[in-house]
Amino acid sequence: MEANGLIYTHEELDAEYDKLQAIAEKKGASTWQMRVKQQTPHCKFGEDGVCCRICSMGPCRITKKAPRGICGCDAHGIVGRNYLKFTAGGSATHSDHGREIAHTLYCASPDGAYHVKDEAKLLSIAKRWGIETEGKDIYDVAHEVAFAGLSEYGKVFGYQNWIKDASPERQKTWEEQEIAPRAVDREVSHALHMTHMGCSSLPEALIRQSLRCGLADGWGGSMTGTQFSDVLFGTPMPIDTEANLGVIKKDYVNIIVHGHDPSLSEMIVEYAENKELVALAHEVGAKGINIAGVCCTSNEVAMRHGIPMAGNFLQQENIVLTGAIEAVVVDVQCIFPALGPLSKCFHTKFITTNDAARIPDSDFIRFEAETAAENAYKIVKEAVENFKNRDQEAVYIPDLKTKATAGYSCEAIIKQLDTVTNSQVDVTGTYQPLVDCITSGVLRGAVAMVGCNNPKVRSDRGHIDLMKKLLANDIVLVLSGCSAQAAARYGLMSKDAKAICGDGLKRVCTLADIPPVLHMGSCVDISRMMNLVCDVAVQWGIDTPQLPVVGCAPEWMSEKAVSIGNYVVATGIDTFLGVVPYVNGSEEVKELLTNGIRDWVGAAFTYETDMEKLGDLMIERIEEKRLALGI
Amino acid sequence: MEANGLIYTHEELDAEYDKLQAIAEKKGASTWQMRVKQQTPHCKFGEDGVCCRICSMGPCRITKKAPRGICGCDAHGIVGRNYLKFTAGGSATHSDHGREIAHTLYCASPDGAYHVKDEAKLLSIAKRWGIETEGKDIYDVAHEVAFAGLSEYGKVFGYQNWIKDASPERQKTWEEQEIAPRAVDREVSHALHMTHMGCSSLPEALIRQSLRCGLADGWGGSMTGTQFSDVLFGTPMPIDTEANLGVIKKDYVNIIVHGHDPSLSEMIVEYAENKELVALAHEVGAKGINIAGVCCTSNEVAMRHGIPMAGNFLQQENIVLTGAIEAVVVDVQCIFPALGPLSKCFHTKFITTNDAARIPDSDFIRFEAETAAENAYKIVKEAVENFKNRDQEAVYIPDLKTKATAGYSCEAIIKQLDTVTNSQVDVTGTYQPLVDCITSGVLRGAVAMVGCNNPKVRSDRGHIDLMKKLLANDIVLVLSGCSAQAAARYGLMSKDAKAICGDGLKRVCTLADIPPVLHMGSCVDISRMMNLVCDVAVQWGIDTPQLPVVGCAPEWMSEKAVSIGNYVVATGIDTFLGVVPYVNGSEEVKELLTNGIRDWVGAAFTYETDMEKLGDLMIERIEEKRLALGI
Repeated sequence: MEANGLIYTHEELDAEYDKLQAIAEKKGASTWQMRVKQQTPHCKFGEDGVCCRICSMGPCRITKKAPRGICGCDAHGIVGRNYLKFTAGGSATHSDHGREIAHTLYCASPDGAYHVKDEAKLLSIAKRWGIETEGKDIYDVAHEVAFAGLSEYGKVFGYQNWIKDASPERQKTWEEQEIAPRAVDREVSHALHMTHMGCSSLPEALIRQSLRCGLADGWGGSMTGTQFSDVLFGTPMPIDTEANLGVIKKDYVNIIVHGHDPSLSEMIVEYAENKELVALAHEVGAKGINIAGVCCTSNEVAMRHGIPMAGNFLQQENIVLTGAIEAVVVDVQCIFPALGPLSKCFHTKFITTNDAARIPDSDFIRFEAETAAENAYKIVKEAVENFKNRDQEAVYIPDLKTKATAGYSCEAIIKQLDTVTNSQVDVTGTYQPLVDCITSGVLRGAVAMVGCNNPKVRSDRGHIDLMKKLLANDIVLVLSGCSAQAAARYGLMSKDAKAICGDGLKRVCTLADIPPVLHMGSCVDISRMMNLVCDVAVQWGIDTPQLPVVGCAPEWMSEKAVSIGNYVVATGIDTFLGVVPYVNGSEEVKELLTNGIRDWVGAAFTYETDMEKLGDLMIERIEEKRLALGI
Repeated sequence: MEANGLIYTHEELDAEYDKLQAIAEKKGASTWQMRVKQQTPHCKFGEDGVCCRICSMGPCRITKKAPRGICGCDAHGIVGRNYLKFTAGGSATHSDHGREIAHTLYCASPDGAYHVKDEAKLLSIAKRWGIETEGKDIYDVAHEVAFAGLSEYGKVFGYQNWIKDASPERQKTWEEQEIAPRAVDREVSHALHMTHMGCSSLPEALIRQSLRCGLADGWGGSMTGTQFSDVLFGTPMPIDTEANLGVIKKDYVNIIVHGHDPSLSEMIVEYAENKELVALAHEVGAKGINIAGVCCTSNEVAMRHGIPMAGNFLQQENIVLTGAIEAVVVDVQCIFPALGPLSKCFHTKFITTNDAARIPDSDFIRFEAETAAENAYKIVKEAVENFKNRDQEAVYIPDLKTKATAGYSCEAIIKQLDTVTNSQVDVTGTYQPLVDCITSGVLRGAVAMVGCNNPKVRSDRGHIDLMKKLLANDIVLVLSGCSAQAAARYGLMSKDAKAICGDGLKRVCTLADIPPVLHMGSCVDISRMMNLVCDVAVQWGIDTPQLPVVGCAPEWMSEKAVSIGNYVVATGIDTFLGVVPYVNGSEEVKELLTNGIRDWVGAAFTYETDMEKLGDLMIERIEEKRLALGI
């Protein structure tokens, strides 16, 4: 059942997923659906953020009868500290990903595994960073830029280089509010210092550092991840691909790349075409080697190579349950430890590769930039050789597949906008056509929809139902992460999806030849969206909080998502969350996040678990902003 | 009641502390004793470490019926991640303190607030770090060394500079075990990356990074804190001081310095002697300005200026309850947020000064190295002016005071040992006399007793009872942190305390003219102990795990303490804890920490909450090591 230009209903997908659940039950395998039942209800203290475990005098829990922990900290301090620790976890994680990419760039060489694919982008960064390029070999430039990028994690003085790419208003705001990010790792360490026993318990201070630590991610580590990935692997341009479980091929060796770091997946994709390995695949009875992706690694290789997207975060177990996977090859982040025991129920090899993500019941093959080629060769070979262990009889691959167009980097968006300019009278290479569409009201605004899945929201329904609503209201969507994969799997990333859009957006999609939801990449690539909003604001001549643009993470779940939320808000974009972070236990912290920080950065959070209301609130906010602009 | 050469009993101290509790009750003030009752029993999931809050799908809790979290992580992964996060918190905190000291050194100038007091130490560091000193102004050297120190937090390549000061065996072990610490902040960020949702859940990997992250503290950030503090404020040498609440003076302006960073307290001490401010004190009716310390800030200024030690961690509220405190001036760490509301019950000003420690109900006066003099002047002035608000009638200062000798840096210990060498036949300036004492059996060994207070242990009893037992068994003690202050307050840091030692230790104390417990400084100064054990091992020609030396933290409570434990063990010293970290929920993690890591680093943890047994186990371990050495 291919959704040729059509959009799947929840029921159509659920019917197939239920069959995979039945397989799990038959196999005696545990899935998240089962574990959610075991873990419900959740601890109320934890959910409210009023449980404190930062010293061994406790743990302490705040109640009416026990309004302070042993040290005397109240609910506001505890909630604020937990929130900052959560942010620091996310910021460190994204940034460590960026560091790996910078290291990969540092290892690039003309005859090595990694090359410079986007020279123009590299040279542009070098220029902005004051690195001499004249007459230099491009690889020497690459190594200098990479070293400078690595140094951003620990520079002794000054703010992040990347913030100079933000709008002047933002830079001024960040400096005035003392949240301009210094060295990436320093902001993380400082956050942990502040949240140590007997340090900060003043909500204002804790939330301020949360914003700063978030900015060290979005305008630091994540930005490095995105920009350097483009230099190494090419800046994404529109590309056709497919999505959902039907991309798994019964007669092929199926290798799933899962995680976040393209240094690994790019090599796996390359070695899946290695003649020797393809021959080996034929030898073991397969028609070839098929690569498909899960989570953000999938976004990375879909954006650049059209590698199909098998599923997002909460689909990772379903993929194994097809019985058709020779190897799940993972790098870092959002990898269910459950894949260990689950893969043991099948012939599937669960291959971990990164020192940052060591998981029990996996085969660990250390993957390093210095030895990437041989590591990748070994991994693909292991997968191919495993084909013979597959029980073909037991394979069940749901017949679900959609068409999708991915690859909308900022550069791609501008290029697409150029196609609707009149080259005689208009300036090309800018966001002006987009600004014109919004000011004229053909588009009412834009929503950046991002983030994970979370069983607290019925899987993917948050994303999809909201998207449909916004599209019908002529609001264009830019997506990343698991949100993008949800859209793709349901068929919303096809150009045909304009059918469900309002008239204005439909016209824009037709004229610009784009799908109504634009895939901008992985979760580190939310940095692209930050460039986008800042550059549009500059083009328009207004500050980012004035833009009729909001951010939304309806199903977020990770520390990274909170870090992202903080930097998106600090960049001046109101952000709407469908899952409440662990802050309900403190009215002070909640007030700051949903209102108070607006005085600092011009934007704030809205928490609303009712998706219908969440959508209404976003549309309302966009219309308010239009009104304020007089458009 | 002065303990002239005598040692207080628990009952004698408790009787006085009870009177302060009565004052609290009368005032309606909350104290930790009351809050402990409200917070007991603690959450069993938290205590066992099996509660996971690292993503918003949860929180999840492991039980027999729910053996895995929603992502599929089991108890071992959750406990291991929590342990690593705890360590990272401590490592970041100590290291951020070190960074501040490095920054202070960077700000030192001949006519500024901060000077280079130990030129020899500075030049020695410069030499070891390959920084040219020949013909350079000492302040230029200071700034270069400070910048190099700051760069250690974010260096792109290589390990921490300080590890070259460790014994060759240790350096080899760390490299082989892949735990040699890279940039300080990087190890923290990497730890947070590993503990992010869907990253590491393999106990072995998590505990390995815990050791590495700990080493980034002990042989990185903390070492910077200690060494650069010595350069700036002088390397401690034996100095007489006093301890306990009786050091508060009824007729004086009493300013309490509390926290950890000597950059602040050194300035407060200096401005307490400022003529203008002393005159102002007289004007407002006081006889002068009296400074006393709490926690590690107290250790810093006691070691260098003989400033009396009013109390340790769990005494901080008692000090305010005397009603005689004009200001509690704090910098960072281990400061009860309770001091906010408590100080409001009295005239006491609670002055916070550091961006890392913002606390409600305090007066914030930002203290920075660049403006240290004016900041300190202002703070002391505020305190002096507050004297007139004191209710002298309501003051109750317990008549408790002991004599103590502090200031035993490594340099001081060697100098003291030189006094017992025969200058005709022995080499001076080494630890050989100490090695001789141990090999001969006059001393059986040494215990480094460190760490906090924790209400889970009856306050200070862990420290004091263990010390008495070890001293009676001819085991010399080196102390730091709140452990040192406990010893001082009970009278064990007086040279007269040799009276309660075994015959061997008594003889050593007499000959070397030392107290049987040597005050080595604050909690960052445990780095001194690492230098000590490595240098003794080299002198002896054995590896550190062979030394009849163990570490002990009977009443530890903070994240810093866990970080310390990890680097002490990684330095090869068996470590005995009287409070179990939150690891009981995983036999795998516990096995690793108490046994498995011995295969990696030659030492491990022992957890034992029965203090009597804990003492026996330490003595046993020391004797085992002696036996193995054939001594």
